[in-house]
Amino acid sequence: MPKIVDHDQRREQLAEAAWRVIRRDGVEGASVRSVADEAGMSLGSLRHYFTTQSELLEFSMRLVSERVNKRIQNMTYSGNPRQDIEAIIGELVPLDEERLAECEVWLAFVGSALAHPKLRELSEEVHDTLYAGFRRIVDSLIQIGMARPETDPHLEAMRLHALVDGLVVHGVTRKQTMSPEDIRQVIVYHLDRMAGEG
Amino acid sequence: MPKIVDHDQRREQLAEAAWRVIRRDGVEGASVRSVADEAGMSLGSLRHYFTTQSELLEFSMRLVSERVNKRIQNMTYSGNPRQDIEAIIGELVPLDEERLAECEVWLAFVGSALAHPKLRELSEEVHDTLYAGFRRIVDSLIQIGMARPETDPHLEAMRLHALVDGLVVHGVTRKQTMSPEDIRQVIVYHLDRMAGEG
Repeated sequence: MPKIVDHDQRREQLAEAAWRVIRRDGVEGASVRSVADEAGMSLGSLRHYFTTQSELLEFSMRLVSERVNKRIQNMTYSGNPRQDIEAIIGELVPLDEERLAECEVWLAFVGSALAHPKLRELSEEVHDTLYAGFRRIVDSLIQIGMARPETDPHLEAMRLHALVDGLVVHGVTRKQTMSPEDIRQVIVYHLDRMAGEG
Repeated sequence: MPKIVDHDQRREQLAEAAWRVIRRDGVEGASVRSVADEAGMSLGSLRHYFTTQSELLEFSMRLVSERVNKRIQNMTYSGNPRQDIEAIIGELVPLDEERLAECEVWLAFVGSALAHPKLRELSEEVHDTLYAGFRRIVDSLIQIGMARPETDPHLEAMRLHALVDGLVVHGVTRKQTMSPEDIRQVIVYHLDRMAGEG
């Protein structure tokens, strides 16, 4: 079914054009017209893929989360659980240009989600999926003895989740003082503290 | 100089009108015209206080941070350092309707800051002030023996800062599952873990 594949690919290309517009001009700048221009496509052709701006934005926001999930699913695990957990968390924070772009676009979407019910629903859905992922990480750390015995799994998962999202905000808004190396160090420090290491 | 006081008060009232518009329609909805409407003022009168939308937005964003600072400065300390630190951190997160409003508006501003150089500068300035505050908190906790001996003050302050900003994001975007009580519990849990309490 080559036509369907083309259709999906074209939608992803348009979403990536929307990301570029959002990084430059914010979510408010990402009209169907400006995204069509950015993608070098006519407005009429874009409307073949997305009928409304809201549909385009929702797809573009969802694609950020799908890209991150796909990278995590395709990861080659080292077999060292602590190293693998660091690598999984590393996929969520701005450690390189690709992840910085995703985090910038994500933060812009979250900032406008209050005023866009569809984006808000999506950010809630992704929040819950992420919480579940952090909960699995905490449960694994407890199981393999890399979390202190007094660990409360629910509070610990909420804490790790908030810490990682805070690092996303800081990596995006304060690049000069929160470098990728700083972000990585805070994650390592946190996992060390969770394990009770000195 | 009653005229100047009136002028400042009117600017704050307009900024509060901008907050209401932003919570409802996002930063992109906060034009000088919509804010004048919300404040029940003519566009001409608003322009007496703010010449451009950018000036209005910058002032409105700065006011969020000033309100929080003022509350912290006016706090009555209990003399119990741990309780006072919890209270200071509590002023930054959405524990009641006033702080939720501030956090929602702040997140909307941070989400649009990428595309607005003035808002970005301001968010960087506030980030640095907050980091310095968290660093003082960590230094105090070390001094009074409420942080484990292996605490790295810089990493610990970056971690606390990221955790608190993450809780702001979660309290705003996921009200149903991150209630004020959840947020408070994560902060208490974190300070307990920092102290090494079981």
